[in-house]
Amino acid sequence: MRPSGRATDALRQVTIETGVSRHAEGSCLIRMGDTHVLCTASVEESVPPFLRKSGLGWVTAEYGMLPRSTTTRSRREASAGKQSGRTQEIQRLIGRSLRAAVDRPALGERQITVDCDVLQADGGTRCASITGGWIALRLAVNTLLKAGTIKSDPLTAHVAAVSCGIYGGQPVLDLDYAEDSVAGTDANFVMTENGGLIEVQGSAEGATFSRAELDALMNHAEKGIAELVAAQKAAIA
Amino acid sequence: MRPSGRATDALRQVTIETGVSRHAEGSCLIRMGDTHVLCTASVEESVPPFLRKSGLGWVTAEYGMLPRSTTTRSRREASAGKQSGRTQEIQRLIGRSLRAAVDRPALGERQITVDCDVLQADGGTRCASITGGWIALRLAVNTLLKAGTIKSDPLTAHVAAVSCGIYGGQPVLDLDYAEDSVAGTDANFVMTENGGLIEVQGSAEGATFSRAELDALMNHAEKGIAELVAAQKAAIA
Amino acid sequence: MRPSGRATDALRQVTIETGVSRHAEGSCLIRMGDTHVLCTASVEESVPPFLRKSGLGWVTAEYGMLPRSTTTRSRREASAGKQSGRTQEIQRLIGRSLRAAVDRPALGERQITVDCDVLQADGGTRCASITGGWIALRLAVNTLLKAGTIKSDPLTAHVAAVSCGIYGGQPVLDLDYAEDSVAGTDANFVMTENGGLIEVQGSAEGATFSRAELDALMNHAEKGIAELVAAQKAAIA
Amino acid sequence: MRPSGRATDALRQVTIETGVSRHAEGSCLIRMGDTHVLCTASVEESVPPFLRKSGLGWVTAEYGMLPRSTTTRSRREASAGKQSGRTQEIQRLIGRSLRAAVDRPALGERQITVDCDVLQADGGTRCASITGGWIALRLAVNTLLKAGTIKSDPLTAHVAAVSCGIYGGQPVLDLDYAEDSVAGTDANFVMTENGGLIEVQGSAEGATFSRAELDALMNHAEKGIAELVAAQKAAIA
Amino acid sequence: MRPSGRATDALRQVTIETGVSRHAEGSCLIRMGDTHVLCTASVEESVPPFLRKSGLGWVTAEYGMLPRSTTTRSRREASAGKQSGRTQEIQRLIGRSLRAAVDRPALGERQITVDCDVLQADGGTRCASITGGWIALRLAVNTLLKAGTIKSDPLTAHVAAVSCGIYGGQPVLDLDYAEDSVAGTDANFVMTENGGLIEVQGSAEGATFSRAELDALMNHAEKGIAELVAAQKAAIA
Amino acid sequence: MRPSGRATDALRQVTIETGVSRHAEGSCLIRMGDTHVLCTASVEESVPPFLRKSGLGWVTAEYGMLPRSTTTRSRREASAGKQSGRTQEIQRLIGRSLRAAVDRPALGERQITVDCDVLQADGGTRCASITGGWIALRLAVNTLLKAGTIKSDPLTAHVAAVSCGIYGGQPVLDLDYAEDSVAGTDANFVMTENGGLIEVQGSAEGATFSRAELDALMNHAEKGIAELVAAQKAAIA
Repeated sequence: MRPSGRATDALRQVTIETGVSRHAEGSCLIRMGDTHVLCTASVEESVPPFLRKSGLGWVTAEYGMLPRSTTTRSRREASAGKQSGRTQEIQRLIGRSLRAAVDRPALGERQITVDCDVLQADGGTRCASITGGWIALRLAVNTLLKAGTIKSDPLTAHVAAVSCGIYGGQPVLDLDYAEDSVAGTDANFVMTENGGLIEVQGSAEGATFSRAELDALMNHAEKGIAELVAAQKAAIA
Repeated sequence: MRPSGRATDALRQVTIETGVSRHAEGSCLIRMGDTHVLCTASVEESVPPFLRKSGLGWVTAEYGMLPRSTTTRSRREASAGKQSGRTQEIQRLIGRSLRAAVDRPALGERQITVDCDVLQADGGTRCASITGGWIALRLAVNTLLKAGTIKSDPLTAHVAAVSCGIYGGQPVLDLDYAEDSVAGTDANFVMTENGGLIEVQGSAEGATFSRAELDALMNHAEKGIAELVAAQKAAIA
Repeated sequence: MRPSGRATDALRQVTIETGVSRHAEGSCLIRMGDTHVLCTASVEESVPPFLRKSGLGWVTAEYGMLPRSTTTRSRREASAGKQSGRTQEIQRLIGRSLRAAVDRPALGERQITVDCDVLQADGGTRCASITGGWIALRLAVNTLLKAGTIKSDPLTAHVAAVSCGIYGGQPVLDLDYAEDSVAGTDANFVMTENGGLIEVQGSAEGATFSRAELDALMNHAEKGIAELVAAQKAAIA
Repeated sequence: MRPSGRATDALRQVTIETGVSRHAEGSCLIRMGDTHVLCTASVEESVPPFLRKSGLGWVTAEYGMLPRSTTTRSRREASAGKQSGRTQEIQRLIGRSLRAAVDRPALGERQITVDCDVLQADGGTRCASITGGWIALRLAVNTLLKAGTIKSDPLTAHVAAVSCGIYGGQPVLDLDYAEDSVAGTDANFVMTENGGLIEVQGSAEGATFSRAELDALMNHAEKGIAELVAAQKAAIA
Repeated sequence: MRPSGRATDALRQVTIETGVSRHAEGSCLIRMGDTHVLCTASVEESVPPFLRKSGLGWVTAEYGMLPRSTTTRSRREASAGKQSGRTQEIQRLIGRSLRAAVDRPALGERQITVDCDVLQADGGTRCASITGGWIALRLAVNTLLKAGTIKSDPLTAHVAAVSCGIYGGQPVLDLDYAEDSVAGTDANFVMTENGGLIEVQGSAEGATFSRAELDALMNHAEKGIAELVAAQKAAIA
Repeated sequence: MRPSGRATDALRQVTIETGVSRHAEGSCLIRMGDTHVLCTASVEESVPPFLRKSGLGWVTAEYGMLPRSTTTRSRREASAGKQSGRTQEIQRLIGRSLRAAVDRPALGERQITVDCDVLQADGGTRCASITGGWIALRLAVNTLLKAGTIKSDPLTAHVAAVSCGIYGGQPVLDLDYAEDSVAGTDANFVMTENGGLIEVQGSAEGATFSRAELDALMNHAEKGIAELVAAQKAAIA
């Protein structure tokens, strides 16, 4: 029995509210249960030095948690003077995941920065950031297409992510914090709408897991990501 | 004529939504027109070293802007590795303003940290942070009172803030960004509900201002702050 | 009765010694009682990136306290690895104050950096820095005029500053440390020689203040600043 | 055909030289082809604050690359003033991987820090660090057992790691840099000697991968890790 | 012929003004020609962690240059966020030099921090800092002796320093900046009043030097340091 | 009697293994007894800004110690976020020493960075870094000469270094850690193969030393450096 009473293969309630920022070229507020992430996509008409004169675009991501998005207040990273290893690991993952479905020559020499800021955390913030970040990216690209700045759509597929884990001995979909903090194994999956894998990150601290368990988690993930992609499609319809 | 069409002594529309954070002891989302600030108050049962064994409580504040809360994206301070001078100046102001109406012995040896994070900016973010931050503080103190952790109310008055300025040659109340960016003089006022002054910060870059002008701005401020206090009272009723 | 025995509207003894640096284009050592600040102005034939090709000059300021300028030794900021919020707030104030009386097109595309280093502190260091910093700036501009580098004088007025406060229940002029550390209200005024206001920063920690009190402090400030401007004129005569 | 001429399921030549540090409680130099990593394990009789009085031990890891371990010189992180996101991600992975096979109550309240410093890099440095780091840890624990400081062996299994990837369309074992820099998919596997999975990190940049491909990579990994565990056993025999 | 017209074995004019700081336990302003250094000594009734319960005192030093103490303005280290390698090297030298003539058990478990801040630079700032720093230390120790805080004098000898170099092919005493910037060899000598050597730092960039040349420089140094010690004695008489 | 049993004028066993890095233009592993330093020289076809269009080359050095190169583990500087004063002092010394025997016009506008990383420390790491760093530099220059990138040899002499000290009352050559940690006086000498002095750094903490003692140390140094130069010649033969 899960703390939330959900079935083992049930997502939390997902809502995606678009256009929440007056300034950003694309934005959304994604809620997966009590995990709320504000995602904005900002277009800049230049690229990092290593891409100049390459004809290729770039998509990158930054991630942050508001100090009191968590159960107890965390130190503000701007005040601490650096981003934690966890923050850097997550924002690298978000950027890599989104880039996997970008046709960079079609984007042209410009950069889109996707900022994912966690307003409230209840587990699964990196996955919500990828799913919501893709919407912000999609909307920013639409802005560029509408303006005629780019001619052909550089986004090749929907990208969404979900975490699964072994909780109470059985594989479950979309861990919330109560589950995540005690789960033996925890795996994040990033996929396209066609089921293509972009990232698989399975991790055990304490107990190991078997290939069969990883397969069971991946089954859950495929179901969950199909539902998340459907939610994405509804949000941008 | 103001860009927004407002009368010279009119505030923007103010809304204060309380209880927006599942985790914080007190929280609100304050909107002054298109300026939106998420305020949380976090209680910690210890004080900074300089207050240990003093019997006195402490209230402090931190301030941040999401990278794309502004017209063009700003660099994330956590990534830059430090808070700007502007950020530090603002968070010192918020903390000082809120402490001015706190009976610190009544609070007892505990600290309340008020985080003010700007989700969207359209001028006046520091003033909105003070007005909203006071609500978060009020609610956190209510939590402590209800729990019996503290016996008597340490908050001695409402605290609110507003900016005024000389725009197009005449004094106006509650500058938005379109006004703030061209105003010759800009003044922030922090007051209690009784009209007691906590902070006056008048500043001219380029042209100087006269005592008469400062008086006119202060008249506007008194009217605006009375309305803000009324909005605070409605929000926590 | 003030600790120093001064009348409520009396400045401390002010001396301004010019030309104290062999290298700087302009310099002075200003003493307001036991507060001693070394001010230098350095001319650089380039401007920050945001002003390139604008035809406008820039005046900026930096502020520091020697570690043992204070009663007990403070940590050296260079060793701590960053400037405190207080330092940044003060140097932003000095720069803003000086720029208010600069005709930036007349200065042309060059930058003058005013360094204010407190050799000994006894209250009022930011105000002494502004009053002395203006002298350094004046002398550096004179150097440029004499050399024919600039044709017309970009300084439009004298700028000076003084702090006032409520001490022992009555408004007093030019707080020293013994007064400043117990004053309920403390206000810094920056004005031109014509009484034009550049900055007003009134602040209460604990008790609030009234408009009448702010007016009384401003009366003191006008008298004090007139005397400081006279001292400036004598120094550069 | 692989650049090195290896079969698709062949490891590079692995050598593990133990006892290479005069000072460390455990150490080795592991070479996987031209990737050379110096691993030391340092015992400290205290634990981080969050574990004090818990009775539990801690194993952590740090990772670094010498500036010229790479084809072109990289900036020294100590000089840059911070560890890159990549470095932090890798050292978190090494620590998590090693802890997965540690009985922390048996280790007792002490910390072992495993330092993995890359002397020469040719791909697969994080995997070599885990395989070699485990040897350093094993030898440090042996030192503690021999001294009677701990009574029962806290290491529950061998831990080793290898990277696999899709190169030229087919799955290959143990990517070297020539392969890694062009591989579409790259996956790191950390396992125990019994085939228990500790970490799976599969990543695609550009093209996605299928479950079948991940399975094929895992088959290679199982073979490779069995050989690495055999090399570990020989080294500490 | 030296730029200043001095004889090869002539010091610049040395003046040592004591008691220049109202707050510090000991202080002086030392001038060696146009090199001016403000030295303060601050007593703290505690020692760094590595000396707690050792019964030993500690003397340490910090060094800084005001931004416009030099011909062209240097970046403020507090603003740059770190002390340069040169600054750290110099302050380590000053501390080591002063400690060489301190009886640390006689000082007892307290720390004296000597701050040397260069107000104006014309070569030889590190040597002037040592000579002046010793005076500040001497005066602070006198304060402690007079107060009865310590019983016996912990200073075992005068310490002074001077730089010598090969200028225009011949050894000269007390290099000023015009000489220092072109001298082939440059050596700093720190000695006690009895001619005991504390530090010898000879350095060639470009051309090497011989033992005979080092001897000639040391002859100059002995003469110069005898004169500096005489100036110290006069200053504290 | 020395702890190692060596004669007072005996070096530790010196070995220099060249070509240890697959990537660097020049490299060696130098061992002086139990002090082991990995030295690489990296060529870059550009120079720092202050040398652009000067026609002059640059040689610089960086130094680091692996965390467990020492008896007890030291904190990793990359993790601490800065290089210690000691590290900066040493790398400045290495760079200055190597540059003293470089004909910079002959090198042309390119930079060679010599990295000296201490794998194991037993005293004398800075001297071993200079002696080994020169070999790496020599080999990198040979690479440039062989490729025809430069026409004439910019290295004007061998450079080597050794530390001497007063141990148990008598001058000894090549201090190891057991001696260094108790020696009253410690001096580092950097010389060319012709006995030209590049750096002399004699230092006393506690007791002073005499000119006669410095002379005795220098006699030892001349003998030691002659042997080190011979070892260098053998290594590159």
